[in-house]
Amino acid sequence: MPDRSRPIPEATVARLPVYLRSLAELLEDEAGTVSSERLAEMAGVNAAKVRKDLSYLGSYGTRGVGYDVEYLAFQMSRELGLTHDWPVVIVGAGNLGQALANYGGFRDRGFPVAALFDASREKVGGHIHGVPVHHIDDLPALAADLGIAIAVIATPAAAAQGVADLLTSAGIRSILNFAPAVISVPEGTSLRKVDLALELQILSFYQEHRDTEGV
Amino acid sequence: MPDRSRPIPEATVARLPVYLRSLAELLEDEAGTVSSERLAEMAGVNAAKVRKDLSYLGSYGTRGVGYDVEYLAFQMSRELGLTHDWPVVIVGAGNLGQALANYGGFRDRGFPVAALFDASREKVGGHIHGVPVHHIDDLPALAADLGIAIAVIATPAAAAQGVADLLTSAGIRSILNFAPAVISVPEGTSLRKVDLALELQILSFYQEHRDTEGV
Repeated sequence: MPDRSRPIPEATVARLPVYLRSLAELLEDEAGTVSSERLAEMAGVNAAKVRKDLSYLGSYGTRGVGYDVEYLAFQMSRELGLTHDWPVVIVGAGNLGQALANYGGFRDRGFPVAALFDASREKVGGHIHGVPVHHIDDLPALAADLGIAIAVIATPAAAAQGVADLLTSAGIRSILNFAPAVISVPEGTSLRKVDLALELQILSFYQEHRDTEGV
Repeated sequence: MPDRSRPIPEATVARLPVYLRSLAELLEDEAGTVSSERLAEMAGVNAAKVRKDLSYLGSYGTRGVGYDVEYLAFQMSRELGLTHDWPVVIVGAGNLGQALANYGGFRDRGFPVAALFDASREKVGGHIHGVPVHHIDDLPALAADLGIAIAVIATPAAAAQGVADLLTSAGIRSILNFAPAVISVPEGTSLRKVDLALELQILSFYQEHRDTEGV
């Protein structure tokens, strides 16, 4: 691991997965090296920012040559903790939970779905897309058995805070929230939120101004 | 509309929906005014950035009082084009498309789902969560009839670029891509991407460093 006396800023951490996706494409195209300019273009940031971000990983590239794609991808995977799988559990076996259980992008990138949990006894006991569905009451015991560190909340908004409380009391310290609700977690727990409508609101801004200003 | 000689930076646009969500919470709590500090705390940015962002809307607040919550929410909704509904279409009636068709966060925030489209004749003709499912070949004609400006791609990765091409040739200029694929669109078309696994990779970064460094 690189020198930790220089902690990686949150904004840089958030860009690492974007770089990694670009590097995966370059590997598919059998590119040996990549310039900071090309990587910047692929990731949608500027080249100076790429160089700064990569310097936190201890990667400086070679002048006139660029970065070794394979090594940089390895460094970044290691930094992101992606050299091993992170089994996740999904709470909420409704439409969204079912879609996430079947989302190839989770499994393919090292986040196999180990179990679904739901509060409805009717949904419990079967499998959805090969993933077993358990009752929410069994979460603390099963999460410990399965060695779960990361959980996904895919419940209705009203249930989200209660589920977050249950997850943290079960020792889970990384939570991804898909429910359209603001929730709070204790210090020391990482919480990320995916707001599916937020991106639509950004699109409607541009669409509105395109319509009204004829851009 | 405020003075357009000072265009709103992209990063500011991306924060407006976050502020708006905080303002909606304040309205629920019947708060009359809000300080930039409080709004900053709710939105997870710093207060100077809030003041700068809001200045683009022509909102400067009142010293010692703050911003009028209701008026600011109105201004922001107007700016984001949220004073009217934007019916959207979803392409891909698999698990993810079905989940999105049923996602309350779309309808509640002004993005009712007008139709689902799929390439499979088996899925076509019925309704899913009350939303009609049409064949993808009928998209250009129906999108024009329905007055669709915004489309959501929820297909497998391999189909995404072809769908994007179809959407843009049908005159749709705002696209939200959920497929785990990089796609390109012509200039003048807005493209936003939701990568459902990206946030998990950010969580695994913090989890990995928590595990290895005992933080």
